[in-house]
Amino acid sequence: MKKQVAIMGATGMVGQRFVSLLENHPFFEVTSLYGSKRSAGKKYKDAVQWVLEKDIPEYAKSIVLKSFEDSPTVQENIVFSALPSDVANTLETELAKSGHFVFSNTSSHRYDEFVPILIPEVNPDHIEAVKFQGTKGFIVTNANCSTTGLVIPLKALLDRFKISDLFVVTMQAISGAGIHGLSALEIHGNVLPYIEKEEEKIEIETKKILGKFVQKFTDFDINIFARTNRVPVREGHTEVVFLKVEAYLPEIISALRDFRGLPQELKLPTAPLKPIIIFEDPLRPQPVLDVNNGNGMSVSVGRIRLKGGILTFTVLSHNTIRGAAGGSILNAELAYVKGLI
Amino acid sequence: MKKQVAIMGATGMVGQRFVSLLENHPFFEVTSLYGSKRSAGKKYKDAVQWVLEKDIPEYAKSIVLKSFEDSPTVQENIVFSALPSDVANTLETELAKSGHFVFSNTSSHRYDEFVPILIPEVNPDHIEAVKFQGTKGFIVTNANCSTTGLVIPLKALLDRFKISDLFVVTMQAISGAGIHGLSALEIHGNVLPYIEKEEEKIEIETKKILGKFVQKFTDFDINIFARTNRVPVREGHTEVVFLKVEAYLPEIISALRDFRGLPQELKLPTAPLKPIIIFEDPLRPQPVLDVNNGNGMSVSVGRIRLKGGILTFTVLSHNTIRGAAGGSILNAELAYVKGLI
Amino acid sequence: MKKQVAIMGATGMVGQRFVSLLENHPFFEVTSLYGSKRSAGKKYKDAVQWVLEKDIPEYAKSIVLKSFEDSPTVQENIVFSALPSDVANTLETELAKSGHFVFSNTSSHRYDEFVPILIPEVNPDHIEAVKFQGTKGFIVTNANCSTTGLVIPLKALLDRFKISDLFVVTMQAISGAGIHGLSALEIHGNVLPYIEKEEEKIEIETKKILGKFVQKFTDFDINIFARTNRVPVREGHTEVVFLKVEAYLPEIISALRDFRGLPQELKLPTAPLKPIIIFEDPLRPQPVLDVNNGNGMSVSVGRIRLKGGILTFTVLSHNTIRGAAGGSILNAELAYVKGLI
Amino acid sequence: MKKQVAIMGATGMVGQRFVSLLENHPFFEVTSLYGSKRSAGKKYKDAVQWVLEKDIPEYAKSIVLKSFEDSPTVQENIVFSALPSDVANTLETELAKSGHFVFSNTSSHRYDEFVPILIPEVNPDHIEAVKFQGTKGFIVTNANCSTTGLVIPLKALLDRFKISDLFVVTMQAISGAGIHGLSALEIHGNVLPYIEKEEEKIEIETKKILGKFVQKFTDFDINIFARTNRVPVREGHTEVVFLKVEAYLPEIISALRDFRGLPQELKLPTAPLKPIIIFEDPLRPQPVLDVNNGNGMSVSVGRIRLKGGILTFTVLSHNTIRGAAGGSILNAELAYVKGLI
Repeated sequence: MKKQVAIMGATGMVGQRFVSLLENHPFFEVTSLYGSKRSAGKKYKDAVQWVLEKDIPEYAKSIVLKSFEDSPTVQENIVFSALPSDVANTLETELAKSGHFVFSNTSSHRYDEFVPILIPEVNPDHIEAVKFQGTKGFIVTNANCSTTGLVIPLKALLDRFKISDLFVVTMQAISGAGIHGLSALEIHGNVLPYIEKEEEKIEIETKKILGKFVQKFTDFDINIFARTNRVPVREGHTEVVFLKVEAYLPEIISALRDFRGLPQELKLPTAPLKPIIIFEDPLRPQPVLDVNNGNGMSVSVGRIRLKGGILTFTVLSHNTIRGAAGGSILNAELAYVKGLI
Repeated sequence: MKKQVAIMGATGMVGQRFVSLLENHPFFEVTSLYGSKRSAGKKYKDAVQWVLEKDIPEYAKSIVLKSFEDSPTVQENIVFSALPSDVANTLETELAKSGHFVFSNTSSHRYDEFVPILIPEVNPDHIEAVKFQGTKGFIVTNANCSTTGLVIPLKALLDRFKISDLFVVTMQAISGAGIHGLSALEIHGNVLPYIEKEEEKIEIETKKILGKFVQKFTDFDINIFARTNRVPVREGHTEVVFLKVEAYLPEIISALRDFRGLPQELKLPTAPLKPIIIFEDPLRPQPVLDVNNGNGMSVSVGRIRLKGGILTFTVLSHNTIRGAAGGSILNAELAYVKGLI
Repeated sequence: MKKQVAIMGATGMVGQRFVSLLENHPFFEVTSLYGSKRSAGKKYKDAVQWVLEKDIPEYAKSIVLKSFEDSPTVQENIVFSALPSDVANTLETELAKSGHFVFSNTSSHRYDEFVPILIPEVNPDHIEAVKFQGTKGFIVTNANCSTTGLVIPLKALLDRFKISDLFVVTMQAISGAGIHGLSALEIHGNVLPYIEKEEEKIEIETKKILGKFVQKFTDFDINIFARTNRVPVREGHTEVVFLKVEAYLPEIISALRDFRGLPQELKLPTAPLKPIIIFEDPLRPQPVLDVNNGNGMSVSVGRIRLKGGILTFTVLSHNTIRGAAGGSILNAELAYVKGLI
Repeated sequence: MKKQVAIMGATGMVGQRFVSLLENHPFFEVTSLYGSKRSAGKKYKDAVQWVLEKDIPEYAKSIVLKSFEDSPTVQENIVFSALPSDVANTLETELAKSGHFVFSNTSSHRYDEFVPILIPEVNPDHIEAVKFQGTKGFIVTNANCSTTGLVIPLKALLDRFKISDLFVVTMQAISGAGIHGLSALEIHGNVLPYIEKEEEKIEIETKKILGKFVQKFTDFDINIFARTNRVPVREGHTEVVFLKVEAYLPEIISALRDFRGLPQELKLPTAPLKPIIIFEDPLRPQPVLDVNNGNGMSVSVGRIRLKGGILTFTVLSHNTIRGAAGGSILNAELAYVKGLI
């Protein structure tokens, strides 16, 4: 018997990924979809401006949308949230209080005292924090899309070497801004040198995720300098990383290539075989060619060089799958297997 | 009386910029255009695949192209070269031997013992090196397009502060690859994480340009880590810079804003009023909006931040004007005013 | 003494073109700028999200925006309007009643009984209609951006030949949708096969413009089949035209090439030397290379072929200059020279 | 037992589609790959510049490429050809003479006396022509990519109504030009108003395909006016069609929607369930969202309108699947089921 789940914010970019990725999921069955007041009462297929490369799954087409704005009573215990952050602020808290298990994409609660920013390959033990939330249900968040692609290779290195002083420059896809978050005229043939709040997210979240949870979260100690840019790419965030690391290149490469985490061990349904895929061709990874590696759940790493104690590499990750909906689903799968939901 | 000049490689991307920028130049008059054997004998307008936003200048349309492949005898003393580097290797040397003053865009001779990589705002005294070349004429090169945008703000800082440890990530325009250097399918909606030889150029050239010339070149001592990428932008290289600097933010900003060089003092025709234009809006500079600042000869700097002794900023420069043809013309103007040609 | 003019909707795409094109205009001086309530009270440079390739003109930067939503009292007699059509509906009418001369880009009044859709090269006599409007001031509209590029060559042909049965397919630029009218995700690497109300506009407006005004408007009799598409181009609408015409190819080409209108005769400041520029190269016109021909006021025509009585050609026009702000300014220049304002 | 097949021109755009689509094919097994002299002797994975969204199939990676330039002796009876047309001219003929069954994408032999341009949904009986070729083997071609998308809906209409006078304007994807056929600078943010020989192909091929074969080919009698353009889209040709048709709109829509052909009846492995997919949403079809409908083998039709006896619609097809490699494979499947190979 599958667990019934609700998706909140189902018509947006990340909501559509949830709807798509949860088709035929072995643990979960989508039984409710929530949208804004404007969409409520309409069939999903009539309310959504679908933007994914594969069509709306059949199961979702005729589900009648409910409104998250009308103090919802949610039947399902498990909720995937892609809510706007102003709504998520209070609504996710209320849901947790009333016994729901919320797997959220929103940044609203990422920095709360006992809310983990969970990436199962990286910090699976952080899930223990939910027991301290003091509510009947709980909130688990995933990281910001640009943080996710970064911390997976960092974790692989951190497991074996001393690292410090991280510089990262991102080239992020337009899908990360949501369906209507960026106008065509702004980004067409252009680079935008700034994404609001994105750099702070990378800096804060990376330290929390790589840190420890023992009754409370303790940040990992590392200097981080992040600079985020938007480029005219549909899907896939590319990030150039400089990192001080005490190691030799061959062992660095094998640390990245051989890295496996708990999701691989547990064979979670959404876990990729390889969390990290390594490229030797200097012209890879590329968003157009590599964003879907591992069904969008692997991160692709290339251009690995070491000079003067500074490791440099380029990492590409799928921002709306690994960096958003897919990441949340993987979190829920871990919670499920651990018997927490 | 204007000096007569020849353009070599006149049909290519940079050659077209030379043809365009030299229209009505107060010092120089284009009297010959050289192309490959395939183009020779044709009128310029019939041989060129013109790709600039303004039409071919009238003066150039009917000039009959000569071939640089048929051991040219060049009438003009002054030669602007946008030759392919394999041709430039020997041809530029021969030209200098036979008394020509070659202002080159090619990398072939940039690292030669007495050939300056000249950026008149940055290292005007390096022009003295030509006197050591031992030939009747000489070769002056300009820097690689991605180096140029970088060293101008570096120089402004270096004049007043101690700097070290430079990390730079570029997002470079497609025009930098030449008219047929990059296929549409490769870059459409994509990021290419590598540009051949480009990172080495930035690292080597920056040290030479910022170094000293006293009978010989001595490199500036700085650690440089460069990573170059291609993005789907038509014109304008964007570069994110991290730099260790000993200074406070307000004095950094005024060092950049107030920077002027010899070309401004001499009021050289192609010199921009301000070598560096500063932006406070975090969403600037952008290639589409800012690439033509200062007629493509200013570099635009934004997102200036200082944290933990690390200065970060974003610099945009016009890769085929400031970073190529415009830069060479400015070099020739300096040589002209100094009476070297 | 220049006439003082106000621009309504000054922060939008077309408003920015007005602000830009009216810099140093010989007849007109911009003294007021109107925006939405949200912008009112701010300096223009702080309120506008500027998107043009050249920077905001100095004269406009510090003008404090007024709100068109707060029942404006407009000091200036002459108003250039780029208002949203719901606002224009009543506001332009009120302005005309209270004695203003409104040159509008909006479709609201194009189909009114005595409002001309004026293109001075095509139907300058239609300006007489304003005398029948029965208001102290008047409204003159220009055509929809995709209509404008089409009717100029049609007029050149119609003057000399019998034409009928027009099929036209457009490939329109994203700037035509306004600054925030189209999301990046919708058009990135894509074609949208439909633009709301655009096809009807082409069909209705073309007939009115090419028709007669003798106390009332009489449509030109022609079958028109229009299909409009959006493509990922920044500026410039490309249109492929099939037209039944009774003529030989050489006389068709010279009719297009030699076409001149009243603005050329009167040497109006914004009039291009040649309303139509002809290309023989089958790969022209192209938006990137040709959109700015004649300072954005010429239309570029290429690929002229005749087969079986069907003339085919491709026409490119600048949608926010010739097809919007530039067109309105040309209309006002004509009115000025005719002593109507 | 599967039939062994060779792919000629395996490293190009269409060759890569062959390699990809023939993975795990129920009838065919790829046993040889042919490339140019430059590639010969290398493993496929080392010689190819792979550009498809899914990685190189495992089976192909280590196949050592042979050269089609060195008078090949081909072991396999069945050859899929994506050869450059200058090579195909003689090589395909030689292959047919020596007993090979050539399924070609090249235009070289499309207009030969007994070579069918086969689209199994449209003219399956034309395959009979191969019996007249007088060679041991034979050549079967598929249509040009822009023709294919057009003739499928035309056939659906022609089966039930009288049609005449066809106007078609295409907006074609960059992949249609091959991997290096189009430079980034030419098409970035641009429209190219001409594709060499493409318009003639549409006009000639459509008439042959829709015509009859009874011992010889007789063209279908229809006036065709085609105008082809290149747009910055990765995959998928969009075509706007105007057609004189004697029918009512509802019966037109059902003729398109209900259209099925022999491949559907025979359940050929590569045949889509529905050759034509109909859209009511005026904003569909779009290349980004719809190009992969029916695994790239369905054509998508939208914006169906009828006015004054003129039917208008927009059709989208996958130019390198349905319009190239997929089409050839479907042809071979038909030949296989009919016992011709």
